[in-house]
Amino acid sequence: MRYLSSGESHGPELTAIIDGFPANVKIDLETVNFHLSRRQKGHGRGGRMKIEKDQAQIVAGVRFSHTTGAPICIKVNNNDWVNWEKKMAHFGDDFNDVEVITKPRPGHADLTGAMKYQQRDIRNILERASARETTIRVAIGAFVRQLLEGFGVQIYSHVLQIGRTKVGQPVRPFEVTSSEDWKNRIEESPVRCYDQTIADQMMQEIDSVKQQGDSVGGIVEIVVTGLPIGLGSYVHWEHKLDSKLASAILSVQAIKGVEFGLGFDTAEHYGSEVHDPIYYQNQQGFYRDTNRAGGIEGGMTNGEPVIIRAVMKPIPTLYKPLQSVDINSKAVFEASIERSDSCAVPAAAVVLENVVAWELANAFIEKFSGNSIEEIKLQFDAYQKLIDQY
Amino acid sequence: MRYLSSGESHGPELTAIIDGFPANVKIDLETVNFHLSRRQKGHGRGGRMKIEKDQAQIVAGVRFSHTTGAPICIKVNNNDWVNWEKKMAHFGDDFNDVEVITKPRPGHADLTGAMKYQQRDIRNILERASARETTIRVAIGAFVRQLLEGFGVQIYSHVLQIGRTKVGQPVRPFEVTSSEDWKNRIEESPVRCYDQTIADQMMQEIDSVKQQGDSVGGIVEIVVTGLPIGLGSYVHWEHKLDSKLASAILSVQAIKGVEFGLGFDTAEHYGSEVHDPIYYQNQQGFYRDTNRAGGIEGGMTNGEPVIIRAVMKPIPTLYKPLQSVDINSKAVFEASIERSDSCAVPAAAVVLENVVAWELANAFIEKFSGNSIEEIKLQFDAYQKLIDQY
Amino acid sequence: MRYLSSGESHGPELTAIIDGFPANVKIDLETVNFHLSRRQKGHGRGGRMKIEKDQAQIVAGVRFSHTTGAPICIKVNNNDWVNWEKKMAHFGDDFNDVEVITKPRPGHADLTGAMKYQQRDIRNILERASARETTIRVAIGAFVRQLLEGFGVQIYSHVLQIGRTKVGQPVRPFEVTSSEDWKNRIEESPVRCYDQTIADQMMQEIDSVKQQGDSVGGIVEIVVTGLPIGLGSYVHWEHKLDSKLASAILSVQAIKGVEFGLGFDTAEHYGSEVHDPIYYQNQQGFYRDTNRAGGIEGGMTNGEPVIIRAVMKPIPTLYKPLQSVDINSKAVFEASIERSDSCAVPAAAVVLENVVAWELANAFIEKFSGNSIEEIKLQFDAYQKLIDQY
Amino acid sequence: MRYLSSGESHGPELTAIIDGFPANVKIDLETVNFHLSRRQKGHGRGGRMKIEKDQAQIVAGVRFSHTTGAPICIKVNNNDWVNWEKKMAHFGDDFNDVEVITKPRPGHADLTGAMKYQQRDIRNILERASARETTIRVAIGAFVRQLLEGFGVQIYSHVLQIGRTKVGQPVRPFEVTSSEDWKNRIEESPVRCYDQTIADQMMQEIDSVKQQGDSVGGIVEIVVTGLPIGLGSYVHWEHKLDSKLASAILSVQAIKGVEFGLGFDTAEHYGSEVHDPIYYQNQQGFYRDTNRAGGIEGGMTNGEPVIIRAVMKPIPTLYKPLQSVDINSKAVFEASIERSDSCAVPAAAVVLENVVAWELANAFIEKFSGNSIEEIKLQFDAYQKLIDQY
Repeated sequence: MRYLSSGESHGPELTAIIDGFPANVKIDLETVNFHLSRRQKGHGRGGRMKIEKDQAQIVAGVRFSHTTGAPICIKVNNNDWVNWEKKMAHFGDDFNDVEVITKPRPGHADLTGAMKYQQRDIRNILERASARETTIRVAIGAFVRQLLEGFGVQIYSHVLQIGRTKVGQPVRPFEVTSSEDWKNRIEESPVRCYDQTIADQMMQEIDSVKQQGDSVGGIVEIVVTGLPIGLGSYVHWEHKLDSKLASAILSVQAIKGVEFGLGFDTAEHYGSEVHDPIYYQNQQGFYRDTNRAGGIEGGMTNGEPVIIRAVMKPIPTLYKPLQSVDINSKAVFEASIERSDSCAVPAAAVVLENVVAWELANAFIEKFSGNSIEEIKLQFDAYQKLIDQY
Repeated sequence: MRYLSSGESHGPELTAIIDGFPANVKIDLETVNFHLSRRQKGHGRGGRMKIEKDQAQIVAGVRFSHTTGAPICIKVNNNDWVNWEKKMAHFGDDFNDVEVITKPRPGHADLTGAMKYQQRDIRNILERASARETTIRVAIGAFVRQLLEGFGVQIYSHVLQIGRTKVGQPVRPFEVTSSEDWKNRIEESPVRCYDQTIADQMMQEIDSVKQQGDSVGGIVEIVVTGLPIGLGSYVHWEHKLDSKLASAILSVQAIKGVEFGLGFDTAEHYGSEVHDPIYYQNQQGFYRDTNRAGGIEGGMTNGEPVIIRAVMKPIPTLYKPLQSVDINSKAVFEASIERSDSCAVPAAAVVLENVVAWELANAFIEKFSGNSIEEIKLQFDAYQKLIDQY
Repeated sequence: MRYLSSGESHGPELTAIIDGFPANVKIDLETVNFHLSRRQKGHGRGGRMKIEKDQAQIVAGVRFSHTTGAPICIKVNNNDWVNWEKKMAHFGDDFNDVEVITKPRPGHADLTGAMKYQQRDIRNILERASARETTIRVAIGAFVRQLLEGFGVQIYSHVLQIGRTKVGQPVRPFEVTSSEDWKNRIEESPVRCYDQTIADQMMQEIDSVKQQGDSVGGIVEIVVTGLPIGLGSYVHWEHKLDSKLASAILSVQAIKGVEFGLGFDTAEHYGSEVHDPIYYQNQQGFYRDTNRAGGIEGGMTNGEPVIIRAVMKPIPTLYKPLQSVDINSKAVFEASIERSDSCAVPAAAVVLENVVAWELANAFIEKFSGNSIEEIKLQFDAYQKLIDQY
Repeated sequence: MRYLSSGESHGPELTAIIDGFPANVKIDLETVNFHLSRRQKGHGRGGRMKIEKDQAQIVAGVRFSHTTGAPICIKVNNNDWVNWEKKMAHFGDDFNDVEVITKPRPGHADLTGAMKYQQRDIRNILERASARETTIRVAIGAFVRQLLEGFGVQIYSHVLQIGRTKVGQPVRPFEVTSSEDWKNRIEESPVRCYDQTIADQMMQEIDSVKQQGDSVGGIVEIVVTGLPIGLGSYVHWEHKLDSKLASAILSVQAIKGVEFGLGFDTAEHYGSEVHDPIYYQNQQGFYRDTNRAGGIEGGMTNGEPVIIRAVMKPIPTLYKPLQSVDINSKAVFEASIERSDSCAVPAAAVVLENVVAWELANAFIEKFSGNSIEEIKLQFDAYQKLIDQY
């Protein structure tokens, strides 16, 4: 499976084409829109989220609610396009009275992007580098995870830390996390935090940071349950599932780090405390009682939940501006504001969830390569039987 | 550029073929061997490191010390092959008295690999999943970084933490790190730590852990200076340099996390403390005084040193064994030892350095795509002039 | 560079996303539309060509007539969508009165496609397999060739044979073919044949075939002048330019063969008559007087015009039907008609021209990899100087 | 699946690494060597074929005659390396008395390659561009086709034309071609021609051409039987099987054209004579009585034999030399001889057969993606049942 996406933050549409998705998968468009709306929520978002109300549209590859095997085209229109048509015109020459952006913002692609692509209007960089692009990645993930969910795979995310406020006790080995109650609490929390008290503190910190004209980042966790054993491979480095997931996670705007299972804490623990002993029972087959590995050993899913944490830096667009230099005049200025979120960590959790969904769906389809869902089911069952008999 | 590698831990050779490397690059084989020997050093290594004394051999793509543009074949022979010929025979049927491994070790690819590939002799998994494979990745990195070094790029690594012992004060923005004195101190330290006192403590911790029959991991940092502005791109997620680097880092055996610049600490700091203000001076052009971004903004090198940290879990092969289950008898056993390092963190630093070298050389060649070094130099200079004039 | 495309023959739009095209290339949308209209011409086309009047639209990657380096999204809307909305609905369940196609047509993807993707309505196959898809490939080629044309590359096509009517004398070494007069004659001919007399015979043959309820194929030639020396490479098979061009040509609907230069005729000629002697003059550098190789030696452009011929089979949808079998009833029937062209050879020439344009633009950008047209020009000139000095 | 290969014509070894081949496939090394020896046969070969006696060696990915799922490394040593060690030394500087080649041969990669890669010794081009590289491609094909043969796929090749001598009557629809007798006659013929009388004429033509100091090409046909229905796909152009096969065929040295089924002859025949009517019988399911499509419709195998023809140009190295120009002195010379085959068409047939084997094995593994042969068999049977029930 592969996809390409296109679209500028204020262009007419974000578009993606997915190639290699199997036929006859039933698709619910409302599920895609549900994930788009989850991405738009969260305490600390600015004004634009209200304008957008993103809705996905499918224009190829689906007929009568089922995929056909042909490439899928998803798009999300920009509801505000009418106000941008002139500033973002694709053709024509009457751009003389369109404002040119010459002030690169620290922490963004602005300056390097403009130099690399030889642009004198930084809008040509920021329009594509913008986190608006994550909208289409959510749509893509929300589309393909419908395949995974048919095989019992569940993906969710929650927030562990915002600024200096953290959940007191990392929940490991995360047994509680598969409960519906737990997930409901997360979904209902404006900061996607399962602990109401901490959640309140997080919101207070966001409000206080906002008042200071500053912004704040945080740490999120993505958990995936129900994956078959053996997605990914150790045989060549590019096949390792954690390598692919890390690539996907770090490709999301503002993410500066990723870890699996115990992650950076493994440095402080000795081998005897880090690895997960292997057990066996007739019913269950091989299993572990702990999951410090985060569900991946040797670059492969080992049957335990996959656990990923990622850190998001504070949004670099601040009311309290940072110093920068105009690309034309070379004069110093204090960096301006393009948008006004003070905290986007809960949204990032939803984005990462769906970015992870893509990678897992891809690994799944690599392993079970049938061209129709009927064929994939047969392949899946055949493999499962081999695993059960092992 | 792309490469494939092959070879088992106790097979006759590790082999790699690199496609897309330009012609007329002068190659020093001793430099490759130097990096191979750096990988074999480090306090806490077991017996095998003495047997190996890895030496690279080039059998294609180089003539009279210069690349020709043709695919390059590098190999590292196994000096101990004579003792493994029978156990690892490629053909023939007299394997009846060859011992079969049926006891999967926790923390390794053993169990999942054997189920996925339907193997009943776990040796068929561990031989390829072994960290021995990093030998050829070091050779590859050490080969291609010779191109980068011709353009002033320097890559090095050091150890920040082993077990509970850490360098007291993270050195940021790492100005001191480009000094030769600093690098020499690292190279001379048996744990690749620039601080002699901390280094002694690290070695003590390793020794103590070893006595307990346990193993210990740690955190390493890779620093790259001299990169041109604008490697990688924000235009599509797969082009982001941090995404590619994260993928490469996580693909190395036993690595469980990666971060760039301030990394996970960005969660605790507000936007005004996290982003790097932009300055300009006639001589120098645009620059930053700080480097919290770790040299990458918008998925592109921004001209500051690239700074990456990675965590390595303790080696999962312990003298003090973990519980596991025989794949045939399903009987519980305590996991056996295949090799005996108690700490491989300094070696991992060298591996990661060279894995990073590959990704950067690849990004460099994508940007400067000439087929000969002569052409690349012209392209590089032309681009540099565009950047200088910006 | 890479692209993905999507869209069904009667869906709302054909869409393509192109990734990796450089910034600051001036794009003329009318040129794209011009090539789309060339594709719709030709003696022997049926009724649909009149409905379509294809127009391309750019919705990403271009601003004020210049590319930005971001992915480009091109689409071609289906002007007849209003009549298909219900039959081709992406969602909803009221498809009970939509006619289901159960009669596979020989010579199409119908039967195999339906079996492979487990479809019981053959429409789900034919909508994507249809030659309608070549519309978007023409748009893509017409977009990217604007880059090539800025470096003096010219691509055109003409028809050598339709049914049993052929141009009397193959024009080799094609010296005349670069004249404007020659090209004008081709563009004005309803069968893209430079010889008026032969063209008339071709049209007569088409008319006569049509009257018989039959269809007719033919042979086209694509010629490319002005390419730099050294696109493609011999170093690994996948880099050979003729290999890539052959792949592109054979991927076009109804094409059953391809040849370069003398092509299949080289079998009948001995070595001394087949290879092109090499000459040298101070002004011109190295050159050939003949071009039997078709401009490619060792998988690389050698500075002579690239000459490709392809054969198109007769359109498999016939008024005079072929026997087939209903997929449900297994009853014999005589294959029905979905569209009514009797000859699409001139259109195929335009398609192939633009498919070739994509491959050449791709090879060009691989060789001159700058991110902006300014940078590419510097790279191109630097390389050209190396070649001139050789 | 993917592979990379390396090695120079007179280097120490040709090497290939294959990634993605499943585990537990039984491999017979003698079969690989058998195909290597078939490649070295044929009336019209020069002296080198006697030196070579190519033997493949496996150094990774196989244990006790079965693949393990790990990357496979195949190599073919150069038995004559001892005579080339100095001229082809990878390192060292004592190359002053090594003869430098400055005379590019028409019809080879020599001149363009030297310009592109900025080489002044043409040996650095010809060593890699040489058809010697096809040795390793035969080894690769001969390895992976063992998987296909386990599923009843048979691949063979024969010669239709050498110079002006052709088999009188193209054998279509090739029913006779699956007989063992037919294949034996081909294997025993020094020109791989099933018709003894024509074969004698072919050999006479070769001898006569050789006496004139000239060389001769020809046309070969590759036939594949037993493929499952539905390899390849119409959904995106790169998935079309004929596109991939054409790419592979054209990537072989000296091949100038390819066609499928009726190929170029389809231009002369009308639709009613070109397409293959579809029939159905309870036992057999859907089938065709004719095979003008060459087994591929819509870019997919349709269950009929795949039939490919390719044309090979005469070997460009002639005793009767062609004019060329020295790259240093720019003086005219008559092109020299590096090797002395006068006809390599029968060898090319064997090469193409194995190149086709790779593409088909790749398409097969894409469709049936299991990691072990046990899993693939289950997937294959499940799919076959879906097809049978269609």
